[in-house]
Amino acid sequence: MLSGARILFEFSTTRAQFALPSDLVYLDGNSLGPLPRNAEARLQQTLNAEWGPMLIRGWNDAGWMGLPERVGDRIAPLIGALPGTVTMGDTLSLKLFQALSAALELRPDRRVVLSDSGNFPSDLYMADALLKRLGGGAELRIVEPEQVADALDDSVAVLMLTEVDFRTGRRHDMRALTAAARGCGAVTVWDLAHSAGAFPIALDACGADFAVGCTYKYLNGGPGAPAFIYVNPAIIDQVTPLLAGWLGHASPFDFSRDYEPAPGIGRMRVGTPAVLALQVLDAALDIWDGVPLADVQAQSIALSELFIREVEARCPDLTLGSPRDPRQRGSQVSFHCEHGYPVMQALIANGVIGDFRAPDGMRFGFTPLYLSEQDVRKSVDVLAQILSSRSWDQPRFHARARVT
Amino acid sequence: MLSGARILFEFSTTRAQFALPSDLVYLDGNSLGPLPRNAEARLQQTLNAEWGPMLIRGWNDAGWMGLPERVGDRIAPLIGALPGTVTMGDTLSLKLFQALSAALELRPDRRVVLSDSGNFPSDLYMADALLKRLGGGAELRIVEPEQVADALDDSVAVLMLTEVDFRTGRRHDMRALTAAARGCGAVTVWDLAHSAGAFPIALDACGADFAVGCTYKYLNGGPGAPAFIYVNPAIIDQVTPLLAGWLGHASPFDFSRDYEPAPGIGRMRVGTPAVLALQVLDAALDIWDGVPLADVQAQSIALSELFIREVEARCPDLTLGSPRDPRQRGSQVSFHCEHGYPVMQALIANGVIGDFRAPDGMRFGFTPLYLSEQDVRKSVDVLAQILSSRSWDQPRFHARARVT
Repeated sequence: MLSGARILFEFSTTRAQFALPSDLVYLDGNSLGPLPRNAEARLQQTLNAEWGPMLIRGWNDAGWMGLPERVGDRIAPLIGALPGTVTMGDTLSLKLFQALSAALELRPDRRVVLSDSGNFPSDLYMADALLKRLGGGAELRIVEPEQVADALDDSVAVLMLTEVDFRTGRRHDMRALTAAARGCGAVTVWDLAHSAGAFPIALDACGADFAVGCTYKYLNGGPGAPAFIYVNPAIIDQVTPLLAGWLGHASPFDFSRDYEPAPGIGRMRVGTPAVLALQVLDAALDIWDGVPLADVQAQSIALSELFIREVEARCPDLTLGSPRDPRQRGSQVSFHCEHGYPVMQALIANGVIGDFRAPDGMRFGFTPLYLSEQDVRKSVDVLAQILSSRSWDQPRFHARARVT
Repeated sequence: MLSGARILFEFSTTRAQFALPSDLVYLDGNSLGPLPRNAEARLQQTLNAEWGPMLIRGWNDAGWMGLPERVGDRIAPLIGALPGTVTMGDTLSLKLFQALSAALELRPDRRVVLSDSGNFPSDLYMADALLKRLGGGAELRIVEPEQVADALDDSVAVLMLTEVDFRTGRRHDMRALTAAARGCGAVTVWDLAHSAGAFPIALDACGADFAVGCTYKYLNGGPGAPAFIYVNPAIIDQVTPLLAGWLGHASPFDFSRDYEPAPGIGRMRVGTPAVLALQVLDAALDIWDGVPLADVQAQSIALSELFIREVEARCPDLTLGSPRDPRQRGSQVSFHCEHGYPVMQALIANGVIGDFRAPDGMRFGFTPLYLSEQDVRKSVDVLAQILSSRSWDQPRFHARARVT
């Protein structure tokens, strides 16, 4: 182990549970986690032992209807939430919409949603559209990440932040900002897209009101896996869902005319659960059993520190785009690179997968569940070779056909 | 063939494509369609040839990012829509919310959303919550299904209907009501939950504005399969999405601060596509290739008429809860039954699967893709035997553990 300070969890046991190509170094698990080996068997079971023979009875007999809360209860300990406070469904943008719309109703006397320029654009788009449609002078106020604490005042209804910046990995101090928001009477909505599964999170201890996140990054639930939503149990009974779907009803199968929200987190459900995706996610979460998040963070820091050190020593044209202090980062690292796009394409063509974020960011994720120190060293070897040989400067690496 | 009037499509070819237990008669495909045999291979391909080896590159290299529109273009001909007018995602309730919120903006001068008491409760819940939150005196006006045409006047902003009643199968005249709505300047939102795959639909020819539907019933996409949304191409450019997620942005991977809706139907996308579910749905749609919907309807009518005739002859305590004229029904049939709940449980225990809808409805779906005349006769045999022997009157059949 790099730190030498203490014995970390033995991550070779988790690596073996992923079907990762042996010739790749995968530094993009912060965008899409790799395939868990147990996913196929879980899907086969869902098809051949559940959907096929049970048909409609699967909702009861295979427990499909309870999947959103059962899977939510497995995610809860990964984000510092109590059982019964997390449910699954839809996508992160929709869960953010649910959380923000509910948060606003808890402070109807205020008009400002405070966010920052490091937030993921979709969160800002969803907030813009909602506030504009609600009218009443609601305002989305966007400040620089460093100015958030100072911008909190008693005009703020909701503080809506993504904890870790998707471009740079810069990490907010959730505990301090949540406390500050609470101190001036604002409701908090945290987006944990780049947090959940990357390091320990303490939603309950911080007193966060709402949190949302996706499960296809560090939680390895697969492309388009369902999102999660957390609501602090102290306020859930005050939440009147704007997305008042039947499966968030207290008794959906009574088909009554009037909506009555389910008790607790169940009211944040909307429509029919995505059973196949939830089953794969549930299988993927098996890998997390017994894995200490503190060790995940410690080893991720060790790997990313090694990467930064090696890149700075061997690739002098690149400059660090992430905070230097690892305590102020999530588990990804960005470097500015003038020719970042073609360099990243060349890296990918040479078996090192990271991603590019405009205008000039090369982004690398360090996920110890399946990455070793050897992987990190290899990735820098390949990067340094590409840069020194200028092998990135080929038409095929400049072509912008990619959508992601 | 029952009708004798003409040669229908040979449905034994479609039945062979489903993994249906041989000892079951499945009359609940209107709730959850059966497992297509090709689903497993498609999932294996998605896992082992795409997600596993491609990882993040699957969004481009496996075409995942285009799945919502590619699958939408396969659904379009089933609902009488032009290519490029349908996209997939989320759940039916969310797609209804999108459609209704967009429809309201097309008539900002009016305040009434007209619907009927036969609409699915979730549609009414979603509309209630949206209208209440938007304020401004918006009103959800609910009339009896037979009164909809008369209730259309120039106060109506949106006519929001489910074409086929989930309880009784009663079917609205989409063409006439859409024309009437248009005549008084109202925007139409049709829910096709019990229509798509049951009979021919002519969205484009009717001039419908918006339509939404689910894919886990007659389209056999699996539990929680993604929903679809159609927007008439004549108005799509006027639609400002309330659910302004990044994947409905014109250039999502520019990560620009400002939302610019994608041209065309793409703006109705919200978040990351549910790839596994879309792949299964895409495979399920293979079964529809070359199947004439007119023949599906003709054979469904033949089967349901046989069922009604036999039940009325042999089960005198049951009374038809559906319109007697098959042209006024979808492809399901309901019977009132005083002890409907335990009778349905007894039916299921004896290998005939329908479902129960409170207060006293026994509901049966007739889907010729996998149902034969022999199946229908067998189901009535079992039903008549259960009723005449009163074998339904056992504690195990009264227990209300079921959630669906």
